[in-house]
Amino acid sequence: MVMNGRILELATRRKTVRKFDEKEIKIEDVLYCIKAAKEAPSGMNAQPWKFLLVSNPELKREIREICEKGERKFHEKVKGPLRGWLKEKRITWEKRFLEEAPYLLLVFSHKKARYFIQSTWLMIGYFLLALEEKGLATVTYTPPNLDEIRCYLNVPTDYRLEAILPIGHSADEKEKEKRKSLEEIVYLEEWGSKLGEPGKLGKLI
Amino acid sequence: MVMNGRILELATRRKTVRKFDEKEIKIEDVLYCIKAAKEAPSGMNAQPWKFLLVSNPELKREIREICEKGERKFHEKVKGPLRGWLKEKRITWEKRFLEEAPYLLLVFSHKKARYFIQSTWLMIGYFLLALEEKGLATVTYTPPNLDEIRCYLNVPTDYRLEAILPIGHSADEKEKEKRKSLEEIVYLEEWGSKLGEPGKLGKLI
Repeated sequence: MVMNGRILELATRRKTVRKFDEKEIKIEDVLYCIKAAKEAPSGMNAQPWKFLLVSNPELKREIREICEKGERKFHEKVKGPLRGWLKEKRITWEKRFLEEAPYLLLVFSHKKARYFIQSTWLMIGYFLLALEEKGLATVTYTPPNLDEIRCYLNVPTDYRLEAILPIGHSADEKEKEKRKSLEEIVYLEEWGSKLGEPGKLGKLI
Repeated sequence: MVMNGRILELATRRKTVRKFDEKEIKIEDVLYCIKAAKEAPSGMNAQPWKFLLVSNPELKREIREICEKGERKFHEKVKGPLRGWLKEKRITWEKRFLEEAPYLLLVFSHKKARYFIQSTWLMIGYFLLALEEKGLATVTYTPPNLDEIRCYLNVPTDYRLEAILPIGHSADEKEKEKRKSLEEIVYLEEWGSKLGEPGKLGKLI
């Protein structure tokens, strides 16, 4: 089965990055990615998204401080599997990437649009592949105190901060997290009936 | 400003399609798109998605009937701007595409994963670009009676039906819906401060 193609190549190569080097990036490249992302479909074609692009070092520091304040509270109370996962991945309340990345792209959604969360995150999917094409990296960072950041930035209450995407060149040596196989996630005709079963499409995958 | 690139090209070309021709499509192409989509990031790398791929005509008819039952109720009570939009776009309770498309891809999310909706829709963003690369079309159809369909298909209650993607070759002559300009959606450094303003990046966009 021929599986090659540009999108698969970009999607496979792309990994989440939490460390950035100081090398400047071109704002044109970021705008290219937004230009591609804004072509995404959305409920009622509402395009319920706004972008705030930040490179000012003082503003990045302020945003980092507010996020880290929220993160400290969150990390104190977090329990269960998430606590273990954070420890294993060595993810702490510290969010250096919010200052280290040359750009922060704050993505807001308009809460009055139908399917505003779904539409905005679908659009972020486009954005991530465009970034990868440009050789740029990010993490879809979701701070625990979204509304505090929205307030600080004087963003109207109709908008919800969906994510902060730090954008830059990767300095993160961590490998990409493993993905499940097709067999684990695709059923044919019937829930539970897997691709790899005899008589099915085992040879295709 | 050089804006060309493969992702922008695919994203710009891609439009939502609600009419399909009867031409068969290769299941390998659908699997290619899932293979690309499952590379998407997700909260805690939970990969909270499952796919049910349906080509059986009787099953497609049943799914269509259940959806249309929900749609009739929905269309009877819908009001406000959405009612006007549906009328303008000539979108009715009828969902022929659920039978006409050679494949239906039902996308489920696992409700116990953190950010399950966000992660699943980001992944759908990847999927749509991969489909476009393969020359295939879809609409991210969200039935009003998600849970009824889940029940009918014997899908466990931990899963939520996020969308049904009919997949096939486009027979839809409608033009792509217009998108907003970069200037309308991107702010620089400060909410409300637009790209196109004097001294800003007007020449870049």
